[in-house]
Amino acid sequence: MIKAPFKGIRKDVTGRLSCYKHDWIAGIRSGFGILAPTTYIFFASALPVIAFGEQISRETDGKLSTVETLASTAICGIIHSILGGQPLMILGVAEPTIIMYSYLYKFAKNTQHLGQNLFLAWAGWVCVWTSLLLVLLAIFNACAIINRFTRIAGETFGMLIAVLFTQEAIKGLVSEFNIPKGENPNIEKYEFTWRYTNGLLGIIFSIGLLYTSLKSRKARSWWYGTGIFRSLVADYGVPLMVVIWTLMSFSIPIQVPSGVPRRLFTPLPWDSSSLHHWTVIQDMGKVPWVYIFAALVPAVMIAGLYFFDHSVASQLAQQKEFNLKNPTAYHYDILLLGFLTLLCGLIGLPPSNGVLPQSPMHTKSLAVLRKQFIRRKMVETAKESMKRKASKSEIYGQMQAVFVEIDKSTTTNTVVKELQELKDAVMKTQDKDKDLKGSFDPEKHIIDEHLPVRVNEQRLSNLLQSLLVALSVCAMPVIKRIPTSVLWGYFAYMAIDSLPGNQLWERILFLFIAPNRRYKVFEKAHASYIESVPFKHIATFTMFQFLYLMMCFGVTWIPIAGILFPLPFFLLITIRQHVLPKFFQSHHLWELDAAEYEEIAGAPQRSLSFSLREMEVPVEVEVEICDAEILDELTTNRGELRIRTSSSGDDRLPQVHPKGNVQSE
Amino acid sequence: MIKAPFKGIRKDVTGRLSCYKHDWIAGIRSGFGILAPTTYIFFASALPVIAFGEQISRETDGKLSTVETLASTAICGIIHSILGGQPLMILGVAEPTIIMYSYLYKFAKNTQHLGQNLFLAWAGWVCVWTSLLLVLLAIFNACAIINRFTRIAGETFGMLIAVLFTQEAIKGLVSEFNIPKGENPNIEKYEFTWRYTNGLLGIIFSIGLLYTSLKSRKARSWWYGTGIFRSLVADYGVPLMVVIWTLMSFSIPIQVPSGVPRRLFTPLPWDSSSLHHWTVIQDMGKVPWVYIFAALVPAVMIAGLYFFDHSVASQLAQQKEFNLKNPTAYHYDILLLGFLTLLCGLIGLPPSNGVLPQSPMHTKSLAVLRKQFIRRKMVETAKESMKRKASKSEIYGQMQAVFVEIDKSTTTNTVVKELQELKDAVMKTQDKDKDLKGSFDPEKHIIDEHLPVRVNEQRLSNLLQSLLVALSVCAMPVIKRIPTSVLWGYFAYMAIDSLPGNQLWERILFLFIAPNRRYKVFEKAHASYIESVPFKHIATFTMFQFLYLMMCFGVTWIPIAGILFPLPFFLLITIRQHVLPKFFQSHHLWELDAAEYEEIAGAPQRSLSFSLREMEVPVEVEVEICDAEILDELTTNRGELRIRTSSSGDDRLPQVHPKGNVQSE
Repeated sequence: MIKAPFKGIRKDVTGRLSCYKHDWIAGIRSGFGILAPTTYIFFASALPVIAFGEQISRETDGKLSTVETLASTAICGIIHSILGGQPLMILGVAEPTIIMYSYLYKFAKNTQHLGQNLFLAWAGWVCVWTSLLLVLLAIFNACAIINRFTRIAGETFGMLIAVLFTQEAIKGLVSEFNIPKGENPNIEKYEFTWRYTNGLLGIIFSIGLLYTSLKSRKARSWWYGTGIFRSLVADYGVPLMVVIWTLMSFSIPIQVPSGVPRRLFTPLPWDSSSLHHWTVIQDMGKVPWVYIFAALVPAVMIAGLYFFDHSVASQLAQQKEFNLKNPTAYHYDILLLGFLTLLCGLIGLPPSNGVLPQSPMHTKSLAVLRKQFIRRKMVETAKESMKRKASKSEIYGQMQAVFVEIDKSTTTNTVVKELQELKDAVMKTQDKDKDLKGSFDPEKHIIDEHLPVRVNEQRLSNLLQSLLVALSVCAMPVIKRIPTSVLWGYFAYMAIDSLPGNQLWERILFLFIAPNRRYKVFEKAHASYIESVPFKHIATFTMFQFLYLMMCFGVTWIPIAGILFPLPFFLLITIRQHVLPKFFQSHHLWELDAAEYEEIAGAPQRSLSFSLREMEVPVEVEVEICDAEILDELTTNRGELRIRTSSSGDDRLPQVHPKGNVQSE
Repeated sequence: MIKAPFKGIRKDVTGRLSCYKHDWIAGIRSGFGILAPTTYIFFASALPVIAFGEQISRETDGKLSTVETLASTAICGIIHSILGGQPLMILGVAEPTIIMYSYLYKFAKNTQHLGQNLFLAWAGWVCVWTSLLLVLLAIFNACAIINRFTRIAGETFGMLIAVLFTQEAIKGLVSEFNIPKGENPNIEKYEFTWRYTNGLLGIIFSIGLLYTSLKSRKARSWWYGTGIFRSLVADYGVPLMVVIWTLMSFSIPIQVPSGVPRRLFTPLPWDSSSLHHWTVIQDMGKVPWVYIFAALVPAVMIAGLYFFDHSVASQLAQQKEFNLKNPTAYHYDILLLGFLTLLCGLIGLPPSNGVLPQSPMHTKSLAVLRKQFIRRKMVETAKESMKRKASKSEIYGQMQAVFVEIDKSTTTNTVVKELQELKDAVMKTQDKDKDLKGSFDPEKHIIDEHLPVRVNEQRLSNLLQSLLVALSVCAMPVIKRIPTSVLWGYFAYMAIDSLPGNQLWERILFLFIAPNRRYKVFEKAHASYIESVPFKHIATFTMFQFLYLMMCFGVTWIPIAGILFPLPFFLLITIRQHVLPKFFQSHHLWELDAAEYEEIAGAPQRSLSFSLREMEVPVEVEVEICDAEILDELTTNRGELRIRTSSSGDDRLPQVHPKGNVQSE
């Protein structure tokens, strides 16, 4: 690959140009319908950026704040939505950037020749180097190696971010009881009484936000309320809770001095302190040349992180189960990211990159599920045929007829491709088994993998949401009203919300389940490794990964070398390739570090006290089918799609299923 | 019945005398094993009594307090455990008593010839009358009519108590922000700053206690931790949480003035204010004769309430599914209650009566489940026989052999009775269906109703727990440390905890489920009326019951006539008998106002996105069987046993199942 520079970029550009016009037309054609995913993804994207703004403001003594994080997100988002290769990907300032910038600030502040004043100029140089590295990675087709970043690296990193969020939430909450550094301890609101009141209010607001957000997140599966109400709460519950708790913070009695509870500390975008950014590029000349070269060290780290994060976000936004029609553009997007990083560096903003889970959330919000309708029709037809003992190709022919009939609206091209896949699935079974009748179960083969969701691929929703972020920069006077404690609750929410679907987390929990209770896991849908890998290997692998995570967390505490915190993750690729295979059998590793989130349906519940009898609902009850709810069920919180395999029963058992491997020890 | 006075009492006494000695022997024989149910029921019984003490203390300006409620519970409990007819029943001061006493106090305080000083003397007269009425009810065998108090009366009353608990929790929490009446507003802890801090701490402590108590209540079904740990948390979680939150209330900084957060207000039992009780009987002579006769009005209410509550508590403590061996003693227990009420009245204590849910909790804690072991053996044997095409009586014979073998320790009498039931169940099927093989399904017929739990029937656990309550009167200096806000949280906990299993509540929730979501109810185990009664009739019945509840709640707000609040419930018996049948079909009423909590197992889940395939767990996993967990599953929060019928499929369908009655409208 390295031998053919520009090859990847050229292919991406050609592929994307062919559908560029359609990207806009499709967006405009959607009409007002596009506003729902737009506002949804805007809130999902803007809220963490606001929280990160407050975090960076504390870490950099106010040098950077919510104004800058929002501005960077808006600028990069607008440019990417217009020029980007994969317009479904959402850009934003992410937690790793904040952490790196905190280290950069601490280093600059403690360095005689830089100081606080040259911090942004020096960070500018870091961005220059980062940009250069990213461009080189793009030119030499480095994206081909993205698959070496396996689940183990991604999930350990995800867990580290969750741990850092938790740390931020706790630190923030404790700080509500203390006098902020650099403040005059003699003013009324910093007297013990009011500090204590501020702390208690902080506990109430942050835990209140955390609890209500977690609850509203699950609204779609509530039994009560209309479908629209539940969808609204599920989609906008978290920003709504921020608004509600902010409003509640204004309901405190007037005797409480202003400044209790504490609110966001951020200058307004039109304040003079926000306008110094235009001089960053001038200051860059003042940075001594030693530090210009020293900037290469953090740049390598950031480039590695961005390359990894951006590609994974892009990958999850276009998982093959989404059935996207447009081609990928990994190489070109890294190139563009290089330029965006340069731009941000020169105007003194923290750069943005592709973010998780917002990118797959965006695709999901644009997906329309046709599964149910099509499935029912097809199963009916297939069953009909089997009754008449039709041959397989006849069955396929009839399903094709149904499929085309249903799907007339879409372009023929796609239908043909999907049908080909379907045909493969049907025909493959024929090869494996001799018995023609027994092997084809229409219920089984049609449902899971081969029926389409249709994603409305376009650029408009991304552009509009970025414009909304830009607008929200002007809404700073309102955003400033959010109590900081609400943001600490939001950090805790982000941490907890990122855990389900992270297999490292799920395995840690699994280890803590009492052996005689493990059957409960089997009763529910569960990851496939639980059945195919012996418990002690799961335990060893998880222990290793957990200790590695703790080591990575430890690195972030080291004063200056902490800047190297992404290093262990790059190292993990080598460890995965060369060290782990020496300790684990390859098919176990393959299951524990699987490319996809594979799941097995739960066993029928085994009754403890009663035999759960199979029963039909007495009369056919009309069932509400809600696209978003089904998609929610199908995706992890990280945005990864759960692939449900056909249980341990048939296909998987012979492959990697030595008998008696899951036991209660 | 009225024609044969003393008949019921005589029968009860004879029946009970025959097993009286065994009651003690069985208790002593249990050895240390008896301590587990003892401490369990002690905490379950003492905590609400402490909370009610704080409530009555506020309502009576401190005339009565936690000392008195605990003392009454202890005295009545000790006497009942020794002399009572049904020693499984737990006695205690209950919420209706507190409400009645609050009305009595308000009336006495506002009446010129009584005043605060003659309150206890007048209440003594109320007790005299109540006692007389109870004794008459017992003599004339009134307990025969207890079955007229159907589910509708019991559950509406239960909901009213839940509403009153919620009201108390909210009132209490609001009061944390205000200056208590009669206190000097100028002392430091009542300054605005500290009142506000006190209120905020109140929110944190009460919501914290509520949340952690609700969580710990469900510990038995947790996946994590050892079985013993989970059992401990489930059994002692709530008192443990009271202790933990009380300890946390001592972790507040020393700058906060003492008195923040506020703690229980109660004199110590050896304070002079607690010793005036011995003079109540002297004061009774000072009550003007008009008020002596006026005391008959509240006495009728209290007697009705007690008669009802005491009998229902006794009933639920000896539900037939518990397979108790000793006879009932409803009449005699009412007689004893009459004497206990008299005793309490004369020494100025609020009287105790049989309490829910503690009474069935007590029985449950003494039950040992033999189901699992026996079941497995029997199903095996039966299957074996069926393989060999044995006839039914052969099957029964073999099961009998197994049963007797397993159950050698118990008296032959009971085994024979149980076997008779089992035989009936097996044979009944034979009559109905012609096909011998098809009709007998061992899995189905053996499990649900006919296998025994054994309850360790004795008096010792009740006596010991009452002695512990007596001891806790001496622990007042410790109990006084509990913050009042923790108690408000506990009131909220009691309200929420009493809701599940109350069919009125479950029906109210059912009405709010969106029609196209009702299928979710069918997927889980659900009350049988949902399938057998058309939705609109469920809705009408529930609306009527809800409005009736609201009316009853309204009555409690009326200043003096509020004392008549039990009246609507007595009226409800007539309404149920004579009015409701005019609006509802009798079999619908029979389902909606069922004597037992009948349930139907859930339908197999219908998949939305995937077909849920039947699957066996790959290897046999050892399953932990925990008696208490199974019993928890089997009982509602009120202590009622859930009778699971054999689904709508076979037995029930022909009876009351017009086709197409459950529809989504």
